[in-house]
Amino acid sequence: MTSQLPPAAQDDVRMSGFSSRVRVEQAVAWVTAQANALEAEQVPLWELAGRVLAKDVISDVDVPGFDRAMMDGFAVQAADTSGASPYNRLRLVLIGTILPGSGLSFEVSAGQAVKIMTGTAIPPGADAVLPVEQAESRGIEVFVVSEVSPGKHIGRRGEDVARGTTVLTAGRRLRPQDLGVLSSIGIHEATVVRRPRVRILCTGNELLPAGSKPSGSCITDANGPMLSALVRRDGGIPTTAGIVPDDPDAILDAMRSDADVVLVSGGSSVGQEDHASALLAEFGDLAVHGIAMRPSSPAGMGRLGRRLVFLLPGNPVSCLCAYDFFAGLAIRKLAGISDRWPYLQTQLRLRRKLVSAVGRLDYARVKIVDGEVEPIAISGASILSSTTRADGFVVVPENSEGYPAGAEVSVWLY
Amino acid sequence: MTSQLPPAAQDDVRMSGFSSRVRVEQAVAWVTAQANALEAEQVPLWELAGRVLAKDVISDVDVPGFDRAMMDGFAVQAADTSGASPYNRLRLVLIGTILPGSGLSFEVSAGQAVKIMTGTAIPPGADAVLPVEQAESRGIEVFVVSEVSPGKHIGRRGEDVARGTTVLTAGRRLRPQDLGVLSSIGIHEATVVRRPRVRILCTGNELLPAGSKPSGSCITDANGPMLSALVRRDGGIPTTAGIVPDDPDAILDAMRSDADVVLVSGGSSVGQEDHASALLAEFGDLAVHGIAMRPSSPAGMGRLGRRLVFLLPGNPVSCLCAYDFFAGLAIRKLAGISDRWPYLQTQLRLRRKLVSAVGRLDYARVKIVDGEVEPIAISGASILSSTTRADGFVVVPENSEGYPAGAEVSVWLY
Repeated sequence: MTSQLPPAAQDDVRMSGFSSRVRVEQAVAWVTAQANALEAEQVPLWELAGRVLAKDVISDVDVPGFDRAMMDGFAVQAADTSGASPYNRLRLVLIGTILPGSGLSFEVSAGQAVKIMTGTAIPPGADAVLPVEQAESRGIEVFVVSEVSPGKHIGRRGEDVARGTTVLTAGRRLRPQDLGVLSSIGIHEATVVRRPRVRILCTGNELLPAGSKPSGSCITDANGPMLSALVRRDGGIPTTAGIVPDDPDAILDAMRSDADVVLVSGGSSVGQEDHASALLAEFGDLAVHGIAMRPSSPAGMGRLGRRLVFLLPGNPVSCLCAYDFFAGLAIRKLAGISDRWPYLQTQLRLRRKLVSAVGRLDYARVKIVDGEVEPIAISGASILSSTTRADGFVVVPENSEGYPAGAEVSVWLY
Repeated sequence: MTSQLPPAAQDDVRMSGFSSRVRVEQAVAWVTAQANALEAEQVPLWELAGRVLAKDVISDVDVPGFDRAMMDGFAVQAADTSGASPYNRLRLVLIGTILPGSGLSFEVSAGQAVKIMTGTAIPPGADAVLPVEQAESRGIEVFVVSEVSPGKHIGRRGEDVARGTTVLTAGRRLRPQDLGVLSSIGIHEATVVRRPRVRILCTGNELLPAGSKPSGSCITDANGPMLSALVRRDGGIPTTAGIVPDDPDAILDAMRSDADVVLVSGGSSVGQEDHASALLAEFGDLAVHGIAMRPSSPAGMGRLGRRLVFLLPGNPVSCLCAYDFFAGLAIRKLAGISDRWPYLQTQLRLRRKLVSAVGRLDYARVKIVDGEVEPIAISGASILSSTTRADGFVVVPENSEGYPAGAEVSVWLY
């Protein structure tokens, strides 16, 4: 399944294209086999949102830790309210008030009531809460105007979380409310999958640093900031090596960074100044090079020591596409996150035909116009603005010649 | 549309519930009227992902800034290839090689070729690129085996972005690829909507700090970490005042923080120790207090100086619900982000009936079981674990008594 370039054969293939292309699903299979969730680390409660649990969380406490009032009202003995109505108001004696967190309590005997607030612990002796709306209070007298049954308006100890319950299971990506539950059972840090460290290298002597004005025959790097944002979206920690010159030593040195994943933008083809693939073949393992897709056909991937290395074409659209198909998948898997694309998917009708070639997967940028899908009429992989004008993309599988106008297609929304 | 509590009337209503409840849509209308996008700020390119443009970005450069090769190959005069075929190989003289970023160039005359790489500037005199696959090169000789027409494989100056083009418009939430485009036109910082600063106060003497073990009749704050994560999700910058005691001076002092939005968790009801609403009525504007919904009916909102203040019930489910309906909406609007919920929506059939009451909107947590919706059979707003067991929620509008088993309902996925 590989199209490895033996270093000795490189002069022959230089500028002569790829000898064969790997199918997209083979490249995806390689990523899936190589990228497993990283080891665990301890992370403080407040930073857990979006992180992935590495082990089950079992509560060692009951929440609440006591029977509590579910209404503002009076803790009473239910038997004392028997027969009460607006026409038969029953009198109780108010013996005290329990404020939340006061730690105070009172023993409630027959004929007595204690004023309590929602969430307060039920005092001993009481077995029901008489809601404030069902009583009239005056000084130390409380008049009951409605019956309550035993247990009424009492939340039982452990009703939210019982001690010993598995509250959240390994593999869960933590939501905001999960942080609330973890906090409520006294968890101040949790064991989660480490976030992959991702080093971004943009190679090319023609590149100016991101955000600088293009001038002469130089262009400004677009891929660095884009990849950095994509990596962060997918749960990785991006760092950038900046622009690396087209020099084998410099590129190898930058690839050998302290990272889980290395993204090399540019230099992934088999042209004269494209060193990255040759370096990976010589010093590591170039598992895939050249993929049957458009754009991104020059993409490659492999290993350099423990690092997963992705060779992303320098053309920005190819870079985005190869990132989403392969590198992003690897980063999400390392981070323990779902291997699905982080894009919404929807079914829409095509306004115009979408032509593809059999034997090659196509990543077609589309606009949504009046609820229908309009392919963006550009072919160049260098046209990054096509991805900002686009609302999303359609993937045309390799066994398809495309779709006719009016066909329903699956659209991934940016 | 308000149910303001005149401070003088507070003793009367204490522990007697709300006199009237505002409808959810009225409360939403108040938020919509009050929360407009904040002023703009300059933010560096690398930190722009997810931010919202405050003004249009117009390119003052062409990208590319020169005509460029779209293939690896040879810059030639197209006329020199006329009639070429494998059986009629035409000979050109190779006069040089242009490497990307080298700045070198050559004047191409009739009968000459210059070796170039994809992305390189087309040298003067040449009007086409002969792909490497359509030539055979040996030393200084290049044999053309196929015709190319004028302009072939040349990408024109400005074809990605033409100078003067509006590249991205105000209001756009920036995607990773947008950062690429901004970078490529030399933008190193952009004018975006400032992120709202959101102060989180959790009130209640019964509360222990988030993540500490619950003990005695005290419970551990769940809302602080949950709200912090929700605020961050919605584009705000959360800071926390920690646990604020049930003391009017302490609460007022904490509410008067340097923030755009203040979230007060707990103390939003009309119980004895619920100071926040009274303080807002006395020192600011308590616009809404008491809402016809379940849970979250004690929620309120108003202004204290320039701050938008949301009174969120202390019960965690109510807190989450009131946040999502009102506070989250305000934060997203201040941040310039879409006012839609940040949840996916899907249509599914109900497995069991879902009962509600007319006159009150219900926020019902549900599980998805075999592709159908199962309401979670708990009523307590204090059962935060219901939101972690749930896959999402169904909103039952106030004019509905609920839905029968088998009905198709709209589910918002957490």
